Amino acid sequence: MNTFSDNIFCPEHRMYGNASKKTHTKGCIHPIEVGMRTLSLTKTYTCRGIEFSSIPLYDTSGPYSDPSVIINPEKGLNPLRDKWKFNSENTEPVSEQGNETAAARVPLRAKKGCSVTQLAFARKGIITPEMEYVAIRENQQLEEWIASFPIGGKTAEPFTAEFVRQEVAAGRAIIPANINHPELEPMIIGRNFRVKINANIGNSAMGSSIEEEVEKAVWACRWGADTVMDLSTGTNIHQTREWILRNSPVPIGTVPMYQALEKAGGVAENLTWELYRDTLVEQAEQGVDYFTIHAGILQEHLPAAGRRMTGIVSRGGAIMAKWCKTNNRENFLYTHFDEICEILRSYDIAISLGDALRPGCIADANDEAQFGELKVLGELTLLAWEHDVQVMIEGPGHVPLNLVEENMRKQLELCHGAPFYTLGPLITDIAAGYDHINSAIGGTLIAAYGCSMLCYVTPKEHLGLPDKNDVREGVVVHKVAAHAADIAKGNPTAWLQDELMSRARYAFAWEDQFNLSLDPVKARVLYAESRAASGQTDGNPDFCTMCGPDFCSMKRSQEK
Amino acid sequence: MNTFSDNIFCPEHRMYGNASKKTHTKGCIHPIEVGMRTLSLTKTYTCRGIEFSSIPLYDTSGPYSDPSVIINPEKGLNPLRDKWKFNSENTEPVSEQGNETAAARVPLRAKKGCSVTQLAFARKGIITPEMEYVAIRENQQLEEWIASFPIGGKTAEPFTAEFVRQEVAAGRAIIPANINHPELEPMIIGRNFRVKINANIGNSAMGSSIEEEVEKAVWACRWGADTVMDLSTGTNIHQTREWILRNSPVPIGTVPMYQALEKAGGVAENLTWELYRDTLVEQAEQGVDYFTIHAGILQEHLPAAGRRMTGIVSRGGAIMAKWCKTNNRENFLYTHFDEICEILRSYDIAISLGDALRPGCIADANDEAQFGELKVLGELTLLAWEHDVQVMIEGPGHVPLNLVEENMRKQLELCHGAPFYTLGPLITDIAAGYDHINSAIGGTLIAAYGCSMLCYVTPKEHLGLPDKNDVREGVVVHKVAAHAADIAKGNPTAWLQDELMSRARYAFAWEDQFNLSLDPVKARVLYAESRAASGQTDGNPDFCTMCGPDFCSMKRSQEK
Repeated sequence: MNTFSDNIFCPEHRMYGNASKKTHTKGCIHPIEVGMRTLSLTKTYTCRGIEFSSIPLYDTSGPYSDPSVIINPEKGLNPLRDKWKFNSENTEPVSEQGNETAAARVPLRAKKGCSVTQLAFARKGIITPEMEYVAIRENQQLEEWIASFPIGGKTAEPFTAEFVRQEVAAGRAIIPANINHPELEPMIIGRNFRVKINANIGNSAMGSSIEEEVEKAVWACRWGADTVMDLSTGTNIHQTREWILRNSPVPIGTVPMYQALEKAGGVAENLTWELYRDTLVEQAEQGVDYFTIHAGILQEHLPAAGRRMTGIVSRGGAIMAKWCKTNNRENFLYTHFDEICEILRSYDIAISLGDALRPGCIADANDEAQFGELKVLGELTLLAWEHDVQVMIEGPGHVPLNLVEENMRKQLELCHGAPFYTLGPLITDIAAGYDHINSAIGGTLIAAYGCSMLCYVTPKEHLGLPDKNDVREGVVVHKVAAHAADIAKGNPTAWLQDELMSRARYAFAWEDQFNLSLDPVKARVLYAESRAASGQTDGNPDFCTMCGPDFCSMKRSQEK
Repeated sequence: MNTFSDNIFCPEHRMYGNASKKTHTKGCIHPIEVGMRTLSLTKTYTCRGIEFSSIPLYDTSGPYSDPSVIINPEKGLNPLRDKWKFNSENTEPVSEQGNETAAARVPLRAKKGCSVTQLAFARKGIITPEMEYVAIRENQQLEEWIASFPIGGKTAEPFTAEFVRQEVAAGRAIIPANINHPELEPMIIGRNFRVKINANIGNSAMGSSIEEEVEKAVWACRWGADTVMDLSTGTNIHQTREWILRNSPVPIGTVPMYQALEKAGGVAENLTWELYRDTLVEQAEQGVDYFTIHAGILQEHLPAAGRRMTGIVSRGGAIMAKWCKTNNRENFLYTHFDEICEILRSYDIAISLGDALRPGCIADANDEAQFGELKVLGELTLLAWEHDVQVMIEGPGHVPLNLVEENMRKQLELCHGAPFYTLGPLITDIAAGYDHINSAIGGTLIAAYGCSMLCYVTPKEHLGLPDKNDVREGVVVHKVAAHAADIAKGNPTAWLQDELMSRARYAFAWEDQFNLSLDPVKARVLYAESRAASGQTDGNPDFCTMCGPDFCSMKRSQEK
């Protein structure tokens, strides 16, 4: 495994340029240090009376952007949560069946009778280190700015750890953080926080190596992914996941069914509850932070799904449907749901209730099959909450723009306010090669309506497995969507970044413009490309090649 | 001018592949032939009882995609509208001041007392060839399908030439078609028709040649631009425009102020009405189909604009504001508006009322300056209509998603239903390098609300002058937006393309999937790229590298 290519771990790629430096904010309650990326600006901008010569940015890249940290993928990242020593009295090592791990870590689980989930602590009124962490993280050290931000007739309020606790207790937000993933920098998914994005990686039987997948995970975080799902289905599933987890500063999600199916020799009808259960435990001990589980697709939904134009397009859903049909039995994920919750509870794994019946084309959107399953997901949400398990709900899929709002409304209505986590929605079927944009359009809209996390789609969607360029493109485009939704929702820290950008634009401060962009590298390259094409080789004068010096409206607008 | 590079006019680039062929539909009223691109499918798909083994697609590429036509940029395209001989008795050649044109064409204008605008004919109850043309074009020879399409409790109705006439007469739609642009294939801009997109091209003082700009215009049409604006500001403005017009099958728009300013030596305060008027006539005789005119920005708006974060970001707006301030006089485009309309009326040039005060950042959106100007644009709309001049209204700009709907609502309210033509809106300020996507997100939403045409934005927005790749990317991304809005609005022909795509997807008909995509070339390349990366070199089996054969949900969903 010393084959990791230099270009992901070398210092140049770990840094964002000289203008950025890693800074840390200490907690008041717990011994935590919350990492951010503080960006120095070339000018001082005054926004609502407050001067900014730098801005701390929400940072998903973890230690990779900290040049003082030595990264060794074979050792994995620093297990920072272990040092917070919060859960130690409630947990015990898993002694039996030594689960092989790369770093020879001994997996933990909750002691009998102990609750270790964030939901359980929140309900008891306890603020965990993770809750304090996310409160600090969401504020971005911008408390003064937030308190000056007008919204709804008053001013905004900075996040408090107590507010985080309340949101988690109410089930409106989750903090996916398996006790066996100590390398994790906690983050929160809920509609009263920043909109988050997930990047899917993982090999298929068709290609890609462990190294490539670990690199993709790190790469996705570097561009802004808040969580990563490892959807590997090929060989080496266990080992790939182990390497990803040990090197990941963001929560890792999986669809355990994929590995279970591999164990069943790829034959859906041969799956058993026992085989699936053992897979859950195996992944739980490795440290997976959330599981997609397709427990809501029932036998009663299959006729409606059969009448669709494109049937079932969820991989997990198609597997379970096949199992139910062949064995003429109810979905075992549904019938064993309590046992599943008991396992998840012992490690604090959040459940992401999969939408097996998401529409695979515009014509199938918002149909009986889709909403029939959503109703069941709502029932399962209440069941999971009884077990103190954190829940989010997965959503579509392909939905025309005019039907997007109904998806959000029904989800809130049927799923008791649990966070919504959607794939797109894609708002047309004919954007092959541009489906990342298709998805970002629907995603922006549903996030503005209250969806908490967007699953990215890459340019390769419907066509093949994404490579590193696709991952970057998919992540950044969905960052645009998530950020734009935050702007629409009036998030004060999101607004500040836009305001600084616009002030930098008006001041012709090109470096600040690049650095405040969601992808500074690309912005810088495109600017340079245009200048080179037009023979401009001097510094950064007060215009760009788009308008030239005589037609620059901003320049003219500032004259006299 | 024999320096045009082969790659835009050579047959390979003119064709869409063997599956496509150019077909023509004859008119019933007029001697017109409406070109479309008919796509053959590899399978026959049954949609609502109708069998499709091919589908005619709306085609903006003009003769360039017809291999039987010999293209010679020095001669220009075939002047097809001349052959319809519709306007001949109402027009006369402009004899005096021989306006130099590349093709030695003699410009025409309306005879004294004659009205040659589409609006004038529509109001008189006359169906022009252009009206019949757009009705046929919008139907895509899919009348049977349209009549089967359920919408609002009944079925849809195919477009008729009479319906087009009514929409034009009511001012809800325009057909920009200067009598001096006979090469034009007429198209319609209005919210009861397909959403259209515009591509801006044009050199700045910073670079780019005539050849490059003509190529960009043809290239933009090839990817789906419905109109092209030539925003050249550098040298050779007149000649560049002449070449573009003679080789353009789509309407060409300009901002005449740019050329007027060049004539005034780049000094805004030296502009005069006479100089501007002569520029209008010069461009009118060349055949420009619509003019952006910033007649709505008044002295009374300037204090509000001065309080903004980024001031005035419209180039034409900044010029006029400077002129008003320096000369302490009212905007001469406003005070001479009747004379402007008289000129436009003589050639049937549509007016695109420019939004000089569009917001240049999120913080300035929907402010007093913006809506103050919009109110004036509404008043000018009524004035233009009095002169039988067709009108559309330009819109923002930078607007957070939650304020997009108000833009559409106010525009409809204040501008009496005239078509809205927007730039974006961009829904965040920090997407440099990704502003085409930023724009497509806001654009989809406003188009779904009723905006009739979207002005594209390229990845180079805010950074530099777009090159050919940027033009393609900008066009296709805004096609996604426009098409998705058509889907949201229930346009039957748009739905059919999505339905065929999804049926092809479910049938693993890869060639059909590529060809039904908005950018078949890119879809094909990405598919091949993934297969090559995973060592797949065989044909097109029933899966892609994204899931591999065992995990394909569509395949599994079709078993038993």
